[in-house]
Amino acid sequence: MATDPAQSERADDTYDEFESRVERISNVGNAAGILRWDQEVVMPEEGTPARAQQLSTLSSISHELLTADETGKLLEELEDADLTDKQVAVVREVRRRYDRETSVPQELVEEISETTANAHPTWKEAKENDDFETFAPTLEKLVELKREYAEHVDPDADPYAVLFSEYEPYLDLETAERVLERLRDELVALIEEIDASESDLETDAFSGEFDDDDQETLARDVLDSLGYDWDRGRLDTAPHPFSSGTQFDARVTTRFEEDDLLGSITSTIHEFGHANYTLGLPDDGYGTPLGESRDLSVHESQSRLWENHVGRSRPFWEQFLPIARERFPELEDVTPEEAYEAANQVYDDNLIRVEADELTYHLHIVIRFEIERELISGDLEVADVPEVWNDKYEEYLGVRPETDAEGCLQDIHWSHGSFGYFPTYSLGSVLAAQLYAAAEDDLGDLTDDIRAGEFDALNGWLRENVHQHGCRYTTPELIEQATGEPFTADYFLEYVEEKYGKLYGL
Amino acid sequence: MATDPAQSERADDTYDEFESRVERISNVGNAAGILRWDQEVVMPEEGTPARAQQLSTLSSISHELLTADETGKLLEELEDADLTDKQVAVVREVRRRYDRETSVPQELVEEISETTANAHPTWKEAKENDDFETFAPTLEKLVELKREYAEHVDPDADPYAVLFSEYEPYLDLETAERVLERLRDELVALIEEIDASESDLETDAFSGEFDDDDQETLARDVLDSLGYDWDRGRLDTAPHPFSSGTQFDARVTTRFEEDDLLGSITSTIHEFGHANYTLGLPDDGYGTPLGESRDLSVHESQSRLWENHVGRSRPFWEQFLPIARERFPELEDVTPEEAYEAANQVYDDNLIRVEADELTYHLHIVIRFEIERELISGDLEVADVPEVWNDKYEEYLGVRPETDAEGCLQDIHWSHGSFGYFPTYSLGSVLAAQLYAAAEDDLGDLTDDIRAGEFDALNGWLRENVHQHGCRYTTPELIEQATGEPFTADYFLEYVEEKYGKLYGL
Repeated sequence: MATDPAQSERADDTYDEFESRVERISNVGNAAGILRWDQEVVMPEEGTPARAQQLSTLSSISHELLTADETGKLLEELEDADLTDKQVAVVREVRRRYDRETSVPQELVEEISETTANAHPTWKEAKENDDFETFAPTLEKLVELKREYAEHVDPDADPYAVLFSEYEPYLDLETAERVLERLRDELVALIEEIDASESDLETDAFSGEFDDDDQETLARDVLDSLGYDWDRGRLDTAPHPFSSGTQFDARVTTRFEEDDLLGSITSTIHEFGHANYTLGLPDDGYGTPLGESRDLSVHESQSRLWENHVGRSRPFWEQFLPIARERFPELEDVTPEEAYEAANQVYDDNLIRVEADELTYHLHIVIRFEIERELISGDLEVADVPEVWNDKYEEYLGVRPETDAEGCLQDIHWSHGSFGYFPTYSLGSVLAAQLYAAAEDDLGDLTDDIRAGEFDALNGWLRENVHQHGCRYTTPELIEQATGEPFTADYFLEYVEEKYGKLYGL
Repeated sequence: MATDPAQSERADDTYDEFESRVERISNVGNAAGILRWDQEVVMPEEGTPARAQQLSTLSSISHELLTADETGKLLEELEDADLTDKQVAVVREVRRRYDRETSVPQELVEEISETTANAHPTWKEAKENDDFETFAPTLEKLVELKREYAEHVDPDADPYAVLFSEYEPYLDLETAERVLERLRDELVALIEEIDASESDLETDAFSGEFDDDDQETLARDVLDSLGYDWDRGRLDTAPHPFSSGTQFDARVTTRFEEDDLLGSITSTIHEFGHANYTLGLPDDGYGTPLGESRDLSVHESQSRLWENHVGRSRPFWEQFLPIARERFPELEDVTPEEAYEAANQVYDDNLIRVEADELTYHLHIVIRFEIERELISGDLEVADVPEVWNDKYEEYLGVRPETDAEGCLQDIHWSHGSFGYFPTYSLGSVLAAQLYAAAEDDLGDLTDDIRAGEFDALNGWLRENVHQHGCRYTTPELIEQATGEPFTADYFLEYVEEKYGKLYGL
C-alpha cells in the first residue's frame, strides 16, 4: 500500500482518470435507458428500425469502453493503490463487469444477440399455436450458446451458477437453492392447508368495470399517498409495466384493464418500490456504482416490500379505501377487510405466474428454476420440458396445464436467453420480509403508520439502510448491515404463516 | 481514378468501413436527439443534472469518432478512389464536418460551451431587469470567442462568413447579403404603402378564449388534414415548439395559449413542414448524409412553405374553417375571408420578431443580420448595440423600442453564441416561395387542391424534388434541379406583392 504523498497523488490522478471512464460508460448506459423507455412508452410504431440501430451503437460503444486495454490497465494500477473504501468498492464493481465482458468473445455475444432477436417471434408464434415443437430447436440452440457463454466466463464453475451470477453476482447459488427448496417444501404444505380449510375469502370486492382514466387518476393517488417524488418521476402506461431511470429521474409505468382495478393498484405499488429505490441512490454517486442500485434480488426486495408488506396489508386498505371510493363510488359498500381479503386470496388452481398470489407465486418460480438447472446441466432434454413442466405443476400445485401455451411456453424469458433470472424474483420477496422485519425492529410496529398513510419512517429506514449505499457493499454485506444477520428465509416464512394462518383460520 | 477490379474491391472495403463509422456517429447524434426531445417534452424537472452529463458524454463521443485519425485516413483514401456519385456525396459531407471539427482546438470548443452555458442565465436576468449592461461583458466575450473560432476554421475568410456557413454551408454570404438587402429595400417600401393605405382588415376573427384540450384536438385535425404520418410521428406540447427526429420517427411539438388559437394553428403547420421534410428522407439512407436533411435554409423553406403558402392562403381557410368550427362552434359566424385576413394582417408597430407577420418578419431578421456583421467585423462596439438597434427599428419599421428588453435583449440566440443563424430564417422563406412557384409550374395552380384538402400532389412534388435527396446535392445544386434556376428572391417578392397588394387594395 502506498503511503508517501507523491504516490498518493499519482493514485488520485489514476483514480480520476478511471472515474471519468466509468462515468462515461454509465452515461452511455443511462442514455440507452431513456431510449428504451421512449421505445416502450412514446415511440411511434414504425420507429423500430432506427431505434434498434441507435441502441446497438450505444451498446457496442459501452462494450468497447469497458473492455478497452486502458480499462484493464487502470484497474490493475488501482488494485495496488491506496484508495478510500468507496473507491475500492467502485474498483471492485468495475473489475467484475470488466472480467465478465472481456472473457466472452464478441462473436459469441453477437451470436447470442442475433439468436435471441430471432427467438422472440418464434416463441410468440409457438405460444399462439400452442406448438412447443416449433420453439424447441431455438431453445436447444439458446441452451447450448448459454452453456458456451458460461464456459468462457468460468470454465471451472457450475455453468448455471455463472448464469445466475449475471443477475445476482453476490448471493451464491447454494444459498439461493437452499432458500428455494425451503420455500417449496413449506409453501406446498401451507397451500395444502389453505386448500383443505375451505375458508371462503371475500373476493368480489373489486369486481366490476373501471374506467381507464379514473384508474389512472387513482394510480396517481396511490403514488401521492406513498410519497413518490413527482419532480423526479412520472407515470405512464406500458403493455408490460416497468420502472427505469436514475436518482434524478426514475419513472414508473403501469397498465389498466377495465376488469382488473386491483391488479393496476398492486402493479403500480410494485413499480413504485423499484423507482423509490432508484430515487434513494445518492445524487453525488451518479455515474459510478456508488450511485447505482444493487442487483436484481435487492431491487425486487424493494418492489415486493411495498407491494406485499404495505400494499397487501390490512392497514393499507383501511387508509386507501376511502381514497379509492372518491374515484370509484361503486366501492361504497366494500369494507377494508373485504378489500384486504380480495388482495390476498390464494389461487391454487392458477397456472399463470404473472397472475399468481403471494404464496403460489414461488412455486411457479421453483418449477422454472428446477427445469433451468437441469436443462443447463444437460440432465434434461429440451424435448422433455413440457412433460416435466406439467408433472411439477401437478406435484406442487395440484393442477396440470392442458396446453403448453399455458404451460412451459407462457413466459418470454427463455426466448431472451435469460436462464438464471427467475430465482431473483423469489429471493427478492424473501429479502423484502427480512428487511421489513428489521425495519419494524428498529422503528416499532408500522401498522399505525400505514393506517395513517405515513410512510416517512419506513422510507427513511430504507434510504438509510439500503438505498443510499448504492453498490458500496456487496449484497451479503448490505443485508447483514441492514438486518444484523445473513440472508434468511425465516422472516418470509414467518410472515406468510402468520398472515395466511389468520386469513384462512388455520 | 481506379478502374481495375482489385482496386475497386479495396475501395468498396474502405467505403464500408467508412460508412460504419459514419453510421455510428449518426446513431450517437440521433440518440442525443431523443434525449433532447425527452428533456423538452417529458423529463421531470429535476432530471437536468443527469441529462446534462448524458448529453455531454454523447457529444464528446461523437466528436472523438469524427475527428479520429482513422476518419481522416479513410477520407483521404476515398477521395482518391473510384466511388459512385452517392458515395462521393457522403465523403464530401463528412469531409466538411471533419475539417471544421479538427480545425478548432477542443479547449476553445469547451470554453465556448462553458461561456454559453453561463451566458443563458445572465441574458435572462438582463432581459428581466431590462439591463443591457449586465449582459454586455458576456456578449463581448462571446463575440471574441466566436471570432477566434472563425479564425481557426479559415484564417483567410471573412469571420462572419465562416460563422454563417456553420448553419448554411453551401449558400455563400454574398448571395445571402444580396437577398437580405433586396428584402429590406422592397419590403420597407411595401410596408409603407400598406400603412398609407389605411385599409382595415378583419382581425378579430379569432379573438376569444379557446380551451387548451380543444386546441390540441384541432392541432391533430390540422396534422391529419395535411397528411402527417402518425405511425412515424407524434404531437406533444413544448414551451418553445420544435420538431425533431429521423425519417422513421419525426415528432412535432406545439403550444397552446388560450387567447391565441391562430398562433397555435400556424405554429403547428410550421412544425409539420419541418417534420414532413424529415419523413421524406429516404429510409435506406438512414445513418449517412444521404438520409439526412440539408441545412437550415432548406429546412426552413419546408416549414415556411406549409405555414405561409398553404396555411395562410385563402383556399386553406375555405377548407379548414368548417373543421375548426366543429371544435369551436363560436367560430360559426367567421367567414373564410375573415379568417384569411386575420391570418395575414401586417403589424408594422410590432417590436417582437416571434410575433411578426410574413412581411415585417424579415426586417427583424435584417436588423439582427446587419448588427451581427458589424459586431463580428469589429465595426460596432457591444456598448453601442442598443442604440443602433433602436435606430434601425425606427428607420425600417417606424417604431422605436422603449426598453432593451423589447429591443436587442428579446432573443435568446446571442446568448447561445449563435451568430450567423438568423439569416437562414429569411433565406428559408425566400426559398419556400421559389419552390412553391416551381411546384405550381409543374403541377398547375394548387388552389383547388388546397381548397379540397388534397395535399398529395404538392407533397409528392416536394418528396421527389427535395426530400428524397437528403444531402446528396449541395444546396445550390438542389435548388437548381428542383426549380430550374439559381436561388432568387424574385418569387418571394412577387408572391408578397401580389398577395398583400390585393389584401390591402394597393
